[in-house]
Amino acid sequence: MPKQMILDCTLRDGGLTNDFNFPEGFVIDCVRKLVLSRIDYIELGYKADPMLFDRGVYGKLKYCRDHEVSELIKEVKGLLGLSGIADLPKFSFMVDVGRFDRESIADAYLSPFSMSRVACYLSQIDEAIDDVAFFQTKGYETSLNIMAISREKTLDIVHVLRKIRERVPFVTVYVVDSYGALYPDGVKKLVSIYKDELVGMHVGIHVHNNLQLAFSNTITAVASGAEFLDASVGGMGRGAGNCPLELLVPYLDKEAYDLKPILSLISEYFTDDDEERTWGYCPKQLLTGIFNRHPVNSIQGAGEDLIQIYNDFQSGV
Amino acid sequence: MPKQMILDCTLRDGGLTNDFNFPEGFVIDCVRKLVLSRIDYIELGYKADPMLFDRGVYGKLKYCRDHEVSELIKEVKGLLGLSGIADLPKFSFMVDVGRFDRESIADAYLSPFSMSRVACYLSQIDEAIDDVAFFQTKGYETSLNIMAISREKTLDIVHVLRKIRERVPFVTVYVVDSYGALYPDGVKKLVSIYKDELVGMHVGIHVHNNLQLAFSNTITAVASGAEFLDASVGGMGRGAGNCPLELLVPYLDKEAYDLKPILSLISEYFTDDDEERTWGYCPKQLLTGIFNRHPVNSIQGAGEDLIQIYNDFQSGV
Repeated sequence: MPKQMILDCTLRDGGLTNDFNFPEGFVIDCVRKLVLSRIDYIELGYKADPMLFDRGVYGKLKYCRDHEVSELIKEVKGLLGLSGIADLPKFSFMVDVGRFDRESIADAYLSPFSMSRVACYLSQIDEAIDDVAFFQTKGYETSLNIMAISREKTLDIVHVLRKIRERVPFVTVYVVDSYGALYPDGVKKLVSIYKDELVGMHVGIHVHNNLQLAFSNTITAVASGAEFLDASVGGMGRGAGNCPLELLVPYLDKEAYDLKPILSLISEYFTDDDEERTWGYCPKQLLTGIFNRHPVNSIQGAGEDLIQIYNDFQSGV
Repeated sequence: MPKQMILDCTLRDGGLTNDFNFPEGFVIDCVRKLVLSRIDYIELGYKADPMLFDRGVYGKLKYCRDHEVSELIKEVKGLLGLSGIADLPKFSFMVDVGRFDRESIADAYLSPFSMSRVACYLSQIDEAIDDVAFFQTKGYETSLNIMAISREKTLDIVHVLRKIRERVPFVTVYVVDSYGALYPDGVKKLVSIYKDELVGMHVGIHVHNNLQLAFSNTITAVASGAEFLDASVGGMGRGAGNCPLELLVPYLDKEAYDLKPILSLISEYFTDDDEERTWGYCPKQLLTGIFNRHPVNSIQGAGEDLIQIYNDFQSGV
């Protein structure tokens, strides 16, 4: 088994919590410190189509235009006194299947990005495979992130994995627990199915923390053979958030990574935001996990009644 | 394997965060709702010796005097319209080894308590076994909670377990991860050793959430054979807190327990206390977990420097 790769998705999944409008200075500080911590991949955001998403609403990383990202990386290199790219991690972007402009995608060798990741639901797999094939012809490493996998049936999953292996055998395929609803047994089962069906290919894990299992489920995935591990600083990400990078790094390899730059980021940006937080574990997120529901807009607001929410979920609302 | 038993320790371990000075009405509301949720055991607090702990400082549950607890239970029964004890859970108290007054301990049949739990470090095992034997002669169910087990060597643990089995074969013995430093493999290994050495006896698990593994480690303990599971509402407990009851209940058995009264408690008391919280997961707690240190006083304060704390722990301060 190859060494696991950590992919930090703070800016990408975290951007879903604030429309990519991060605090002043956060983006550059985040990238700089992730570089210092020697994280393998840094995901900067989406390459969303500006025709579909209003540029007045979203921050730059919603679109990840190559020239803007190149500027960002150049600035980070300047701050760190780096000249080449040898000391840099790889950078990735994500697209939602179909919701990007193929014309805007440069060949990989002209782009600051090494990897493109395609997010889709199981039902969108044909279109997603086409997108992956497109990015592969452009020279990118690719991943296929099949979301909300906790809602799918094993037979359907196996069917889709076989199709992927047949058509794009060099893609990394992710188990994505969008709903934060998987228990360790479920993760073990899914990663094992992926490994069995995708012989010789890489498997990734991307989990949410609704059941306070994001870190634990990532550990379980490693034990089951996953090679690509998503995590984010402070667990920042939609809903209950992701696997906290600061938990994963000490577990994996104390020598390969440096925890301190990550702690520094947390100290500066994550410690005192409880009053206005729009993400992170909360009881309502727990309920979305238990009931296997999408976490959109489900951070608990003042005055919301947990019992009512429970009842609604239970009765299928 | 018998059905697992949940022991709620909100009032006992939670009392360590506020010197047992709970918000007005919380204690009775907590007990009432834990009864309604059909939790198997409710731990109300310590039977600390008032000669050692100033009654002006601590709330009543630091001392758990029988007549005061009987009043509390009577009040709860009144509120719930219960006449007998058939619908009540069992009640437990804890003592720190040696730090209680044997004269104050009534025979179990005269007491509102069914179970007494003796907390000790491994080095205090002889004295703790004496205390357990004392409580057994008084007619109580007993447990022996060996704290900070993540710091002990396997050979020493095995030696002590054999002594326990020889001298008090009817006690339930707990794996207590006081430092919240165990990863799932460590929990599996320890519970397995306990089960192997304590054939025919019950094993318990009590964990802290420093690595966001409290729930996961409790699941792992169940899979390894643990029967007694400690949890608390909202995870309330010293430092990073315990295994959240609201995570454990849905996992174990949706029929046996009722989650709603627990959610109601969380809504009322646990949702908006972020500003003044003195417990719960925070980055500093994470560091105590990583470095295998005692979590006393380690909730992060404003202005504290995580890097400094990291360096201090790393250099052995």
